[in-house]
Amino acid sequence: MQNNNKLNVELLLTGNELMSGDVIDSNSAHIAQELSLLGLEVTRRVTVKDDLAMLTEEIVHQCKRSDILIINGGLGPTVDDMTAQALAAAADVPIEEHEQAMNHLLDWCKRRNYELNDSNKKQAMLPQSCDIIANETGSAVGFTMNIHGCQVYTTPGVPRELKHMLPHEISPHIQAKFQISDTTDISRFQVFGLGEATIQELVNLHLPDWPSDIELGYRAAMPNLEIKLTTHDQSGHDKKTTWQSKLTDLLGAHVIGVGKISMAKSLIDVLVAQNKQVTFAESCTGGLMSSYITRESGASEVFEAGFVTYSNAMKTKLIDVPPALLIEHGAVSEPVVKAMLAGAIKQSGADVGVAVSGIAGPNGGTDEKPVGLVWIAWGDLDTQQTAALLLPLGRAYFQQYVATAGIDLVKRHLLNTTLPPEYLASKAFLKQQ
Amino acid sequence: MQNNNKLNVELLLTGNELMSGDVIDSNSAHIAQELSLLGLEVTRRVTVKDDLAMLTEEIVHQCKRSDILIINGGLGPTVDDMTAQALAAAADVPIEEHEQAMNHLLDWCKRRNYELNDSNKKQAMLPQSCDIIANETGSAVGFTMNIHGCQVYTTPGVPRELKHMLPHEISPHIQAKFQISDTTDISRFQVFGLGEATIQELVNLHLPDWPSDIELGYRAAMPNLEIKLTTHDQSGHDKKTTWQSKLTDLLGAHVIGVGKISMAKSLIDVLVAQNKQVTFAESCTGGLMSSYITRESGASEVFEAGFVTYSNAMKTKLIDVPPALLIEHGAVSEPVVKAMLAGAIKQSGADVGVAVSGIAGPNGGTDEKPVGLVWIAWGDLDTQQTAALLLPLGRAYFQQYVATAGIDLVKRHLLNTTLPPEYLASKAFLKQQ
Repeated sequence: MQNNNKLNVELLLTGNELMSGDVIDSNSAHIAQELSLLGLEVTRRVTVKDDLAMLTEEIVHQCKRSDILIINGGLGPTVDDMTAQALAAAADVPIEEHEQAMNHLLDWCKRRNYELNDSNKKQAMLPQSCDIIANETGSAVGFTMNIHGCQVYTTPGVPRELKHMLPHEISPHIQAKFQISDTTDISRFQVFGLGEATIQELVNLHLPDWPSDIELGYRAAMPNLEIKLTTHDQSGHDKKTTWQSKLTDLLGAHVIGVGKISMAKSLIDVLVAQNKQVTFAESCTGGLMSSYITRESGASEVFEAGFVTYSNAMKTKLIDVPPALLIEHGAVSEPVVKAMLAGAIKQSGADVGVAVSGIAGPNGGTDEKPVGLVWIAWGDLDTQQTAALLLPLGRAYFQQYVATAGIDLVKRHLLNTTLPPEYLASKAFLKQQ
Repeated sequence: MQNNNKLNVELLLTGNELMSGDVIDSNSAHIAQELSLLGLEVTRRVTVKDDLAMLTEEIVHQCKRSDILIINGGLGPTVDDMTAQALAAAADVPIEEHEQAMNHLLDWCKRRNYELNDSNKKQAMLPQSCDIIANETGSAVGFTMNIHGCQVYTTPGVPRELKHMLPHEISPHIQAKFQISDTTDISRFQVFGLGEATIQELVNLHLPDWPSDIELGYRAAMPNLEIKLTTHDQSGHDKKTTWQSKLTDLLGAHVIGVGKISMAKSLIDVLVAQNKQVTFAESCTGGLMSSYITRESGASEVFEAGFVTYSNAMKTKLIDVPPALLIEHGAVSEPVVKAMLAGAIKQSGADVGVAVSGIAGPNGGTDEKPVGLVWIAWGDLDTQQTAALLLPLGRAYFQQYVATAGIDLVKRHLLNTTLPPEYLASKAFLKQQ
């Protein structure tokens, strides 16, 4: 990560719940991501329990080391909340009632028909001559002050309040204060079925001139991979659209879409565009494909019914799988998933569908059909394709991977994608074919 | 949290990915939880990027402050991994090849048919006269050494490896080294449908003599609540079983079960004991109830089929909901969920079932039937109960809450629980009843 501004940035987090392991800290990730948009890099982060002496000591130490210190937590009304006190001690100034903060509190309570009580009033007791940072989503304001040449910002520990304050208040203040003009721009898109190493090899091979001012980053968002393109200056920004297109062309249908889009949402978009309906016949995924689709609002436009046929008898009764196929080939077999697919499409009247049957484990595997084996069939009544994959990933991740792959495969069918996804080759189970 | 041993414990985490916000740190929570079992409290945690000078400086500083320093990350084979180097610099000892570590690497590679390469060999280059900590699940060993009177432990950044190493290697070493005998004991159980404040009120009212040496803690595990009972000495341990029983009796059927058990698993256990089968007819939850059940291995014993009937037409076609009911009352109505339940039980041959139909949002609400309204029916063919709840929780959490409540309600039916759950009263939607 390039640091355009050569500013040294540190974080200080406070809260007993962060030390005990009862709460996982996601706030520092949000702060780091927000600052990265200004080209700023956090180099060091300290987390301490709610202890006034420790907090004060850390603040003094961090202010000496850094240009910007962001403090998270400890702004609330309880005795555990001592950020203001610690900052006053570190700056050697008194605590006093701050008019703007008190007005915020009065207004906050008024809009909610609350009585302002004494513990709430504490939230307006702030270090002398600090500047208020508005909090539109919570009772505690943030504030900023300069200590030993370091600009200190305090932010609320409640994630929802922090997420609002960062882009609306903190970033603009930092940008103005430190005259940061060249800001960072990050584009993200989602990929399924290709690993980080494979993508990097493809880039090295096919896009050897990849510009050095477009940083290529990866983040595992299981079972997807998120690709991040980061640029820090106008020259990078100008090139990015072109190179992002080159990269998405290279990765082809492995790209789910731009932004935070899910595989299910990308299928819904294709179905809406083609005015078609999908159905699912699920054994080993047990309803997860239907659940993925219906997590998205708008699912009702493209999805009427899903079949969770966990037992052999129900595969026959609900989606007309001939008992003879089940006896001859077993439930985890190509003929059975083809019959499941056809039956589900006929019963639901959908245009396309996916059927899966596999061994999620941990039990039920044999030498011939090991844990992690899954047969998938997808397509419509005229054209069906099938594949057997071996995905020994553990029960939960197996189900997630299979459900995502199933949705991917029917989307590829709808789009007439000719090149098969990489996982059909790399994870193919060829033993019995 | 009581600190039996008055030992000062700090953590040091290293990794650029932890600074950029791309990865959320869950390792420090695991370490803190593991140490809490020894009665040890982490008071301060520092996270820095992969920079040798910064790492070395932090180690020197933290060793001066603390009795135990646990370092996480930086043990891998790449140039970014510099924990061993930093520790050697902090202790002012040379790095040298460590025989035991090299044997671990050779053995590790042999079992996987890998060639040991130069970058891997780096993982055996450790500070002189450190002691090896076995890693049974990864290529990098941990190690421990004493610097300025502080016992330093290095641990792998890969969560799976860390989770294995903590209880099997690190804790026993600390316990022996610091002669910790009185260890902490934590019992956990899961609750659904009661909030933290309500539970605390019930305890204050009905168990006013709650012993001070049994700490009562809560952790939100949405949509469940985890209750933690922590004791630090023999007197506490001895009393705990009795008081835990009093508490679970007080909370009644709101208790899902002991340990990390899910609501779905607790239903499976009841079904297995009664030799019964369950089915689900899902509209607004879109397959999530079936998915919850089939996430658990052993689901096939009690679950044959689930029906995801998202459209009105499919409610009629697949589970025989009379079209007249849908026209007269709408899909989100008591008569429709009753018909869905009966139809699903008949089609699947299951003994009991749950049917849900609601408005997950964000669209589709009306004044009469707002977003967040759901009708639930549960029971068997002879006895059915229904409820309307208003859960304006946002689409994702609405689905999770409804699916969990549905599973809870059919479990209560099977157990003949007479007292209704608290949420049936507090979240009841009475407008149209």
